[in-house]
Amino acid sequence: MELFEKELSSELVYQGSFLKVYKDRVALPDEHISTREYIQHPGAVAILALTAGGELILERQYRYPARCVFIEIPAGKIDAGEAPLSTAQRELLEETGYSAASWTYLGSAHPCIAYSDEMISYYVAEDLTFSARQLDEGEFLEVFTQPVEQVLAMALTGEICDSKSIVGLHWLAAYLAGKMPVVNSR
Amino acid sequence: MELFEKELSSELVYQGSFLKVYKDRVALPDEHISTREYIQHPGAVAILALTAGGELILERQYRYPARCVFIEIPAGKIDAGEAPLSTAQRELLEETGYSAASWTYLGSAHPCIAYSDEMISYYVAEDLTFSARQLDEGEFLEVFTQPVEQVLAMALTGEICDSKSIVGLHWLAAYLAGKMPVVNSR
Repeated sequence: MELFEKELSSELVYQGSFLKVYKDRVALPDEHISTREYIQHPGAVAILALTAGGELILERQYRYPARCVFIEIPAGKIDAGEAPLSTAQRELLEETGYSAASWTYLGSAHPCIAYSDEMISYYVAEDLTFSARQLDEGEFLEVFTQPVEQVLAMALTGEICDSKSIVGLHWLAAYLAGKMPVVNSR
Repeated sequence: MELFEKELSSELVYQGSFLKVYKDRVALPDEHISTREYIQHPGAVAILALTAGGELILERQYRYPARCVFIEIPAGKIDAGEAPLSTAQRELLEETGYSAASWTYLGSAHPCIAYSDEMISYYVAEDLTFSARQLDEGEFLEVFTQPVEQVLAMALTGEICDSKSIVGLHWLAAYLAGKMPVVNSR
């Protein structure tokens, strides 16, 4: 079955301070014309940071769209021209104050394929050293650590209900069990 | 630490045929004023449909924003006033042609907490009967089945890289292992 949709034209219909929305005209597989609206996103990274004692670094952050506080793994947007691994190193330090001597790329996933082109690259960070965090202006988040087994349980009970974090924990469990097909850098 | 952000005003800044974008003025925890832009979404469901032979029903669908074909579990948007379980039953039938006699609610997750209020409710569908699928106008997707163990492997290799599906598979694995704290309906 033919699935491909061909771009006919592309228009930036909303340019906010953060969000960029495009509306494209496309030719469907049956050659009918339709439109596709989506967010253009620079991509992001998410970090599974493991302490020597087997604890994972987590954050509590208020997320305005859903109007509640989420428990999440550290994550952040890729700056223009930045390599994803550099983003991961920068974000972990800024948000949590930790640097890591060992970085392992786990894989990438698309959080929202229906209406965003965002892709998130996941890394395990180990051999941690704490200095001091450097939050961006207007960024408010709490950092805490929890044993990995407890964190994995929280991803089943609903206590962790952020999909980005659940995907990371799924891969972390496979990594710790030696079942993750690992590529060491990206 | 105070994390809450208070809404001061809310404006619909883009209303497309599919996407609704809001830009709100908010008071941050330190009382500085900032803006938050986000997609307002009606919510969605995703379905882990298991055949009697232990295969999972999957779809191949071209997703225009990322410009590629993804392997996904069946999913769809909740219509106005529709109960999530009804959406799940409707979407499974429309997209795949299957009805299920047994439905189990697994949990809910937020795919994109930084810029969308979308929440996805997950269900396991069992005791399947096939009739005929009824795709929406302009909807193109391939349906296939694969043994659950193989599907779980595909979620580690990158062959399945849709976060919505990886979250569902994470919960399905726990459900099949008897480790999922189950609520039977929602």
